[in-house]
Amino acid sequence: MTAVTPSAWQTEPFPDSPQGWIDRAAEVAAVLSTDAAARDKAGATPYAEVRLLKESGLVTLLGPAEHGGGGQSWPTAYRVVREISKADGSVGQLLGYHYLWNWAARLVGTREQWEHVEAEAARNRWFFGGAVNPRDNDVVVTEDGEELVFTGRKSFSTGSKVSDVTVLEGVLEGTQTHIFAIVPSNSAGLTFHDDWDNIGQRLTESGSVTLDGVRTPWSSAAGFVDKVFQPRVYNTLNVPTIQLVFVNLYLGIAAGALETAAAYTRTKSRSWLHGGYDNAVDEPYVIDAYGDLTAKLWAAEALADRIAEEGERLHGDPDAVTEATRGEFEVRTAAAKAVATEVSLEITGRIFEVTGARATTSTEGLDRFWRNVRTHTLHDPVAYKRREVGRFVLTGEIPEPTWYS
Amino acid sequence: MTAVTPSAWQTEPFPDSPQGWIDRAAEVAAVLSTDAAARDKAGATPYAEVRLLKESGLVTLLGPAEHGGGGQSWPTAYRVVREISKADGSVGQLLGYHYLWNWAARLVGTREQWEHVEAEAARNRWFFGGAVNPRDNDVVVTEDGEELVFTGRKSFSTGSKVSDVTVLEGVLEGTQTHIFAIVPSNSAGLTFHDDWDNIGQRLTESGSVTLDGVRTPWSSAAGFVDKVFQPRVYNTLNVPTIQLVFVNLYLGIAAGALETAAAYTRTKSRSWLHGGYDNAVDEPYVIDAYGDLTAKLWAAEALADRIAEEGERLHGDPDAVTEATRGEFEVRTAAAKAVATEVSLEITGRIFEVTGARATTSTEGLDRFWRNVRTHTLHDPVAYKRREVGRFVLTGEIPEPTWYS
Amino acid sequence: MTAVTPSAWQTEPFPDSPQGWIDRAAEVAAVLSTDAAARDKAGATPYAEVRLLKESGLVTLLGPAEHGGGGQSWPTAYRVVREISKADGSVGQLLGYHYLWNWAARLVGTREQWEHVEAEAARNRWFFGGAVNPRDNDVVVTEDGEELVFTGRKSFSTGSKVSDVTVLEGVLEGTQTHIFAIVPSNSAGLTFHDDWDNIGQRLTESGSVTLDGVRTPWSSAAGFVDKVFQPRVYNTLNVPTIQLVFVNLYLGIAAGALETAAAYTRTKSRSWLHGGYDNAVDEPYVIDAYGDLTAKLWAAEALADRIAEEGERLHGDPDAVTEATRGEFEVRTAAAKAVATEVSLEITGRIFEVTGARATTSTEGLDRFWRNVRTHTLHDPVAYKRREVGRFVLTGEIPEPTWYS
Amino acid sequence: MTAVTPSAWQTEPFPDSPQGWIDRAAEVAAVLSTDAAARDKAGATPYAEVRLLKESGLVTLLGPAEHGGGGQSWPTAYRVVREISKADGSVGQLLGYHYLWNWAARLVGTREQWEHVEAEAARNRWFFGGAVNPRDNDVVVTEDGEELVFTGRKSFSTGSKVSDVTVLEGVLEGTQTHIFAIVPSNSAGLTFHDDWDNIGQRLTESGSVTLDGVRTPWSSAAGFVDKVFQPRVYNTLNVPTIQLVFVNLYLGIAAGALETAAAYTRTKSRSWLHGGYDNAVDEPYVIDAYGDLTAKLWAAEALADRIAEEGERLHGDPDAVTEATRGEFEVRTAAAKAVATEVSLEITGRIFEVTGARATTSTEGLDRFWRNVRTHTLHDPVAYKRREVGRFVLTGEIPEPTWYS
Repeated sequence: MTAVTPSAWQTEPFPDSPQGWIDRAAEVAAVLSTDAAARDKAGATPYAEVRLLKESGLVTLLGPAEHGGGGQSWPTAYRVVREISKADGSVGQLLGYHYLWNWAARLVGTREQWEHVEAEAARNRWFFGGAVNPRDNDVVVTEDGEELVFTGRKSFSTGSKVSDVTVLEGVLEGTQTHIFAIVPSNSAGLTFHDDWDNIGQRLTESGSVTLDGVRTPWSSAAGFVDKVFQPRVYNTLNVPTIQLVFVNLYLGIAAGALETAAAYTRTKSRSWLHGGYDNAVDEPYVIDAYGDLTAKLWAAEALADRIAEEGERLHGDPDAVTEATRGEFEVRTAAAKAVATEVSLEITGRIFEVTGARATTSTEGLDRFWRNVRTHTLHDPVAYKRREVGRFVLTGEIPEPTWYS
Repeated sequence: MTAVTPSAWQTEPFPDSPQGWIDRAAEVAAVLSTDAAARDKAGATPYAEVRLLKESGLVTLLGPAEHGGGGQSWPTAYRVVREISKADGSVGQLLGYHYLWNWAARLVGTREQWEHVEAEAARNRWFFGGAVNPRDNDVVVTEDGEELVFTGRKSFSTGSKVSDVTVLEGVLEGTQTHIFAIVPSNSAGLTFHDDWDNIGQRLTESGSVTLDGVRTPWSSAAGFVDKVFQPRVYNTLNVPTIQLVFVNLYLGIAAGALETAAAYTRTKSRSWLHGGYDNAVDEPYVIDAYGDLTAKLWAAEALADRIAEEGERLHGDPDAVTEATRGEFEVRTAAAKAVATEVSLEITGRIFEVTGARATTSTEGLDRFWRNVRTHTLHDPVAYKRREVGRFVLTGEIPEPTWYS
Repeated sequence: MTAVTPSAWQTEPFPDSPQGWIDRAAEVAAVLSTDAAARDKAGATPYAEVRLLKESGLVTLLGPAEHGGGGQSWPTAYRVVREISKADGSVGQLLGYHYLWNWAARLVGTREQWEHVEAEAARNRWFFGGAVNPRDNDVVVTEDGEELVFTGRKSFSTGSKVSDVTVLEGVLEGTQTHIFAIVPSNSAGLTFHDDWDNIGQRLTESGSVTLDGVRTPWSSAAGFVDKVFQPRVYNTLNVPTIQLVFVNLYLGIAAGALETAAAYTRTKSRSWLHGGYDNAVDEPYVIDAYGDLTAKLWAAEALADRIAEEGERLHGDPDAVTEATRGEFEVRTAAAKAVATEVSLEITGRIFEVTGARATTSTEGLDRFWRNVRTHTLHDPVAYKRREVGRFVLTGEIPEPTWYS
Repeated sequence: MTAVTPSAWQTEPFPDSPQGWIDRAAEVAAVLSTDAAARDKAGATPYAEVRLLKESGLVTLLGPAEHGGGGQSWPTAYRVVREISKADGSVGQLLGYHYLWNWAARLVGTREQWEHVEAEAARNRWFFGGAVNPRDNDVVVTEDGEELVFTGRKSFSTGSKVSDVTVLEGVLEGTQTHIFAIVPSNSAGLTFHDDWDNIGQRLTESGSVTLDGVRTPWSSAAGFVDKVFQPRVYNTLNVPTIQLVFVNLYLGIAAGALETAAAYTRTKSRSWLHGGYDNAVDEPYVIDAYGDLTAKLWAAEALADRIAEEGERLHGDPDAVTEATRGEFEVRTAAAKAVATEVSLEITGRIFEVTGARATTSTEGLDRFWRNVRTHTLHDPVAYKRREVGRFVLTGEIPEPTWYS
C-alpha cells in the first residue's frame, strides 16, 4: 500500500469530540481510498493499514482517556467503523472487530480484568484479533495447575495475523463452559494460516488458526473468580454489540459505493447516445436511482444511529441490564441488520446502472463493494434476524441469548 | 361516532413532557380505533373526532404555554400525528394540517401577527382549516380600502367544515403576490362543499370551497407591513414542515396497519391447513413477513424522527435559516417522504398475506390503511422527491423553493 | 347494470377459432367495462352479467360442439377468463369457476356421467355454481335408498345465486369419502345466503350456502360405479386446473388496471407543475413505470399461456396422466400463481403513481382492481405455492395432491 | 482448460430436432461447467472452448443443412445460447454473437452474398467475430478502385481473437453510410488487442481492435449493389435479434446460478445452528427463496421463448417485415430484456442467501454468475428499454430503429 506512509497523526493531539473522531476517521478513509481497488486485488496482509489505524489513534477510540485512550463511546465507534468502511470494507471490519474484542474484557471479565486490559491496550495501542467461532466447538481447554492450555482449530479468525493480542475461546474439558482469554498474538502454539481466500472482505485475514497448546494463566480467564464463572446478563450483550458493528460495516460499504459511483457518474459516465441529455448527471433515470438509493441509505443509517444510542444506555449501566432490555436491544439490532443487509446489497449492486458499461473494468474495481457486503452479510442468516423481529412483534417473545441472537 | 363521548381529559392537567403528550395521543387513538372501520365506511363529517382533539388538548400542543397551549415543539407534534394516524389516518391528517396552519402565522406572519394568532388559538382551542392549493391560481384578492376581498374557488380544502378558522390564500389582483390570511370559518362568503368522495382519507373533509367575496382586514395579511410583503427564507420552511407531517401520517397509518394485523393474526387467523403448524403466529412465512415489515418501518421512523430534530434546529432560530440549511432540510425531508411512501404502501398492502382470506371482509375494513396511504401519497409525485435527493447527491444542487419543494 | 341489454350475440354464429372466441370475450368485456366501477360499488347480484355470458355463448366455450358448445379447449378458456377479468374481476371469476365446475364432471365423473352433463350444459347454456369448500368438513352426506342427502353448510359458494346448477360436495357419513354431485340450483333445501360482503370481488356471490337435506340420486355421485368411487390420477387435476383460472383472473385484472390507467394518463392526467413536461405521457417516471409494469405483465402472461398448453396435453389424454406429469403441472402452476400474485398486486397498486391524485375519486373507482386481486390472491397462501416450487427444484419432490396443491 | 479434449461429437451425426440440439448444447455445457470457476479466474483466451463449439456442431446450428449446417432456426439458437450460458456466460456470449454475425449476411447482404457466406461458414465451421461498435464512429472506409480500406479502432470486439472471420463496420469517407463486410480474421492490418479486463464475461475476448488499412473487395460490402446500399426494413431486425441473444444469455447465466446453488445447498450447505432443521433443504426460508427465484425465472424464460417465436415469423419472411411488425418485435424484446435483467441480477445475487457463508470461497467462485450478468446487462441502459415499452403502451409509438433500439 503505497499511499499509507508514516503520518502526521502520530504527533497530533486526539480529537476532543465525537465529530472530531469521525472527521479523523474520514481522513484515514481518504488515505485508504486512494488505492482501495488495487489493494483489494492484491489481497496482501494489511500490516500498513493496521499501522494507519494505530497512528491515527482510532484503535484507542474506546480506551480510557487517562491511559491514552480516546475516551469515546460505542455510538462514535460505530460511526468510525462506517467511515473507514466507506473506503475499505476489510479495514472497517478489522477495526470493528478490534473494538469488540477490546471491549470483550468489559463484557465478560471482572472489573479488575477489564481495567487492566483497557489500560494496557490504550497505552500500547494494541490491535486485537480473535479466534472465536462458537459455531464450531473445536477448541478444548485443559487445566495444568494455574495455567489453561488451549488446543484445537478455528476455521475463521478475523485480524489474527495483524494483531498484537488475540481473544481465544474454547470449552473447558469435560464441561459445557466456554472460556475466553486474551493472549499475545505471538504466543507459542498459536499459528495463523493464510487460507482466507474468499470473494469479498479479502484483506481481513479471516483465515483459520491452530492452537497447539497455547498457555495462559487461569487468572486471565475472563469473568472467572476462583475458577468459577460469574455470569451476568451484561455478558450476553456481546451479540448485539458486534452485530451493530456488522450493520455499520454494511452501511459504510454502501455509502462508499454510492459516493464512489457518484464521483464516477459526475466525471466519467457518458450520457446515453439516444437519451437526449448532454450529461449523465441530467438523465432522469440516473437521478432517480441516486435519489432512491440515498433515501434508503439514510433511513438505514438513522436506524443504526438510534439503536447505537439505545445500546449506549445499556453499556452505560451494565449492572442494570435485564433480560428484557437486552432482548429488546437484540431485536432492534436484528431489525437494523435486516435493513442494512437489504439496503447495502441493493446499493452495491445498482451502482453499475448509474455508472455504465465502462465502469465494469477491473481497474475501477467497483464490484468490490458488492463482493464485500455479499460476503459478510452471510455471517449468519438474515432470515433468522427477521424471525427474531417477527416473533417479538407477534408474540412479545425476546430472543434467547445464543452466539448469534 | 358512538365511542367518542365527553371525556375525562377536559378536566385533566396537560402532560408535562413530550412522552406524556405522545401517551395522551395514544389514549385518544385508542378511542378512535374502536370504530375506525365503521366511521371510514360511513364517511360522516368528523365533528366528534375534532371535539376529541380539542378536549384532549392535542390541538394546542404547539401553542404557547402561557396562553394555555402545550408548549411543545415540532418533533413531538410529528410523533402525535403518528399516534393518531395509527388509529385513523383521516383524523391524523386533520390534526397534522391543523398544526401547520396554526404555525403558518409564524412561518409567514410578522411577530405581532403570530403572537396574536397563537395566543388566541391556544386560549380558544381553535381548530384550523385551510383553503390553500397553490397549484390552482383560482382565487383572486382585491383591495377595498383597508379590506381585502377573496373571490374564487379551491378544489381541495382539508378540514374546512370542522374548523374554527381557515387560512385563505389568493393572488393579489394584477400582481403575482400570494396573500395568506386567517379568517373565521363562518365568515360570510365562505362556503364549504361536501364533495370530497375519494377512495381514502375519507373523513378529512377535503372538498372544495367557494370564496364569494370573503372580507378580512389588510392588517391580517400575513407578513405584510404597510401592504408590502417582508420575505425571509424562513417563509419557505412551510414545505418541508408540512411534508414531514405527511411522512408521519404515512408512517402512523402503516404502524396502525401492522398492529391491527398482528392483533388479527394472533387472535383470528387460522394456520394453514397443510402447513404443519397449529397457530398462525408460528408459521415461518408469517413471522418472516412481520419481521421484514417491522424492520422497514423502524428504519423509516428513525429517519423521520431524526429529520424532525434537524428541522427543529431551524424552527428554533428562524432568522438564522439560510437557503443552504433550508435546502438541506428539504432534501432530507424529500428522502423521508420517498422512504415513507414505499414502506407504508408495502406494509398496508402486505398485511393481508399474514391475516388471510377471511380478513378481507368489509367489516374488518383492513383495506382502509392501504386506501388511506395510497390516496395521500399522491399529494405530489414522489418521483420528484427522489429527483430532489438525487440531484443533491450528484451535483450538490438544492431544490428551488416552490409550493412543493 | 344499464349497459347490458339483450344483445346481438343471441343470433350470431359462434366464432370458429380460439382467437375468434377471445375477440368475442373482448366484446363482452367492452360492455362490462362501461359501468364496472358503478356496479362494483352497487354490489348487486349479477343476473344481467351472467345473462351476458350466456347470450354471448361464452358459457358454452368448453362444451361439445355437437350439442351446441363452443368446442374449445382450456388454453382458450383461460384467455377468455383473462379478457373478461380485464373489465370485471367478479365476472371473470364467475366465468372461470363455471368452467371448472362444468369440467368437474369430466375430472371426477364416469364417461357416461360427463357426456350427459356436458351435453345438457351446452344445450341449455347452464351456468354452474359450486358449494365446495374442502377446508371445512361441514357437509355430511347420508344415504336414503338410492338417494343421497346433503346436509350442512359451506362458508363460501361462488356463483351460487346466479347459477342454474350447483356442484355439491360433502363427506359420506361414517367414511372419509368425499362425494361430488351436480344438482339444480333451485333444489329443495338449497339456500344461498346473501352474506358475501368483502373488500373485493364483490359481485361474485361467494356467500354461504345451507344444505338442508338436499337430495340427489346415487347415480349422480360423480365417479362412483356401484356406489364405489373409481379413483384415477386425472381426478387430482382439479387443483392445477382451477388454480390456473386464478392465475388468469389476476393477470386479467392487472391488464385491465394497466389499460384503464393508460387511458386515464393519456386523457386526464396533468403533467407535474414543476416537471418541465407539457403532457403526462412525456414524463420519464410515468413512461418508466408503464414500461416496467408492462414488461412484468407480459412475462407472467407468457408463463400462464405456456403452462396452459402444458396442461392441455394432460387434459387431452386423461388416462395417460401420471403422478409425475400431474405433479409437474401442479408445480408449474404454483410458480405461475406466485408470479401472477406478485405482478398483479404490483400493477394494481402502482397505477395510481401514473394517474395522479385526482384519480383517487370514488367515481373512477380505480382501487377496485387492487381490492379484487388483494381479495382473491388470499384464496390459499402463496407462500405454500413457493414452497411447492422450491421443494421441487431442491429435492425433486412433487406436491402431494390435496385440495390446494 | 483441461476438461475440453477432442470429443466424440466430431464423428457423431447432427441431432435431427430442436430438442436434440438443445440436448447437445447441454452436453457441451456439462463439459464447460467442470472447470468454469477456474477458467473464469484464469481468464485465458478461449481457444479450446471455441473448438468445442465447432466440434459439437453448435457453430453451424443456423447454417443450411445442404452445406453441412444444422438447418435450425432462431428459437433453437436462443435455447442453445441459454444452455451454454448456464455453464459459462462467456462462451454463451461468444456463441450468441457468432450466430448474429453469421446471420448478419442475411440481415444486410444481398441474396447472393448471404447464400455464399452461409455455405462457406457451414462447410468450414467458421467462428465469427465482430468489430462493430456503432456508438463510436471511429472507423473510416475509403475506396481504392474496387477495394475498400478500413482504418481506425474499435473499443470492443467480441470474439475477435478466437474467430475465423470478422464482421467489420465503418463509415464510408465523406458520407454517413455505414458499410459492413466480412473478412478473414487474419487479414493484414487487423490487430486484436488483449485489453479486455473487466469484472465479468472475462473470456469473451471483447478487447479493442485496430484496423490499419484492412482491405476487402467492394463486392463484399453487405447489401450494396453497384456500390449503392439497398435498404429494406429487414436490415433493422439486427437489433432485436441480438438483444434477444442478450436476454437468453442472462437467463442462461441465471439458470446456471440457480442450478449450481441448488446443488450446493443439497450437498454442502449446513442448516442453521438455531433453526431447528437437520438439513438446509428443509429450512423454510431456503425453500421459499428457491421457489420465488424459480418462479420468476420461469416467467422470464416463457417470455423469451414466446418472443423468439414472434421473431421467427419475421425472419421466416424477411420481405414482409414492416416498420410496424419490426417495431412491435423490438418493443417486445425490450420488455424481455428489462425482465431478464431484473431477474438475472436478483437470482445471481440471492443464491448466496441459500448457500451460506462458506459458499463465498474463491474456489467455488459463485460470484462469477453475478459478475457476468452485472457486466453485460450494462451493454445499453435498461432504462431505455423500459422507455420503449412504456411509450408504446401509452402512445402506440414504436421505437425509431437505431443501433440500440
